[in-house]
Amino acid sequence: MDFSSKYLEQAVQEVSQLPGIGKRTALRLVLHLLKQPEDQTVSLAKALVDVKTQINFCTNCHNISDHKLCEICANPKRESQYVCVVEDIRDVMAIENTSQYRGHYHVLGGKISPMDGVGPNQLNISTLVDKAKAGKVDEIIFALSSTLEGDTTNFYIFKQLEGTGIKTSTIARGISVGDELEYADEITLGRSILNRIPFEASLKS
Amino acid sequence: MDFSSKYLEQAVQEVSQLPGIGKRTALRLVLHLLKQPEDQTVSLAKALVDVKTQINFCTNCHNISDHKLCEICANPKRESQYVCVVEDIRDVMAIENTSQYRGHYHVLGGKISPMDGVGPNQLNISTLVDKAKAGKVDEIIFALSSTLEGDTTNFYIFKQLEGTGIKTSTIARGISVGDELEYADEITLGRSILNRIPFEASLKS
Repeated sequence: MDFSSKYLEQAVQEVSQLPGIGKRTALRLVLHLLKQPEDQTVSLAKALVDVKTQINFCTNCHNISDHKLCEICANPKRESQYVCVVEDIRDVMAIENTSQYRGHYHVLGGKISPMDGVGPNQLNISTLVDKAKAGKVDEIIFALSSTLEGDTTNFYIFKQLEGTGIKTSTIARGISVGDELEYADEITLGRSILNRIPFEASLKS
Repeated sequence: MDFSSKYLEQAVQEVSQLPGIGKRTALRLVLHLLKQPEDQTVSLAKALVDVKTQINFCTNCHNISDHKLCEICANPKRESQYVCVVEDIRDVMAIENTSQYRGHYHVLGGKISPMDGVGPNQLNISTLVDKAKAGKVDEIIFALSSTLEGDTTNFYIFKQLEGTGIKTSTIARGISVGDELEYADEITLGRSILNRIPFEASLKS
């Protein structure tokens, strides 16, 4: 693209580095900002820099937080003996939105993926193992994606926890609520038969 | 959504005000920035503010420019007797990319659309009419979208130019290059027959 202004070109270049945003979308966004009042752009820019400079990560669970401990870890009503292991803070938000879980979390910051150069040392695994070995955790609940990388990560952590006697569990895999059986894939359907639950339990939620 | 940090919430809120970006995409973008080095966020923020504070609009054609006159208007090799009327600076870029046009432009900044509250006075129409009446323009080429609003705007400007004796033209409407006839809509196909061109002319480009 041939820009008539180097400031425009620079802004489009920067915006198009965001994931899923190409040059055309970037240009559309920048031209949109150009039509808006100046304070909107200034507050957008300030909010982005603030996120990067002001945000802390909870020292206990690695969730994003404005304080040393996140709201969940700091809340004495949460059941700290349960630790739900997730990839990302978005997963924390997704599980919190269900209102079905009252325990703590542990945010790994990704999953083991040798293809992307992510090994166990790049993730917050050692702090989880330390927490488990300190003896205050009863159950670790794996809530990672149901992918090869997610399963690998689960298994790696499971191995690290061997000998601690801590109960480990994983969130149920099965047919999504509202799904038609004929469209479910074979592996999901097969596992959902193997891991069937008592009918009474399915009435609870 | 329930955010664990007010800075995160603020940033997501700001980013989701951009067109076509919802809360989920905004969260994904902000979390992406959080994983990148700080200087990337700082330079993105600076580029956005720079666009808003540093960019000028060309005093002749209203194109975006870093100087008082844009590169096109300042270039003595461009044929200033031709003025191509476009909605938006993106259209200037699109036409420039074809390398088929060596004249000047005039950016209206939108099109007449009473539904969106845009009348002729919100657009850069009077400066175009002044330019035409100053007698240095031979031909005005309408290159607006082929929509009701585009046609209305064309017609409004055409009426304003009455009596000046300036030649007006509009870019050709017809079958796009590479299109199959059977999938073309009836209006386009009908017009392309009415406005057929000598076969020799079609061999030129």
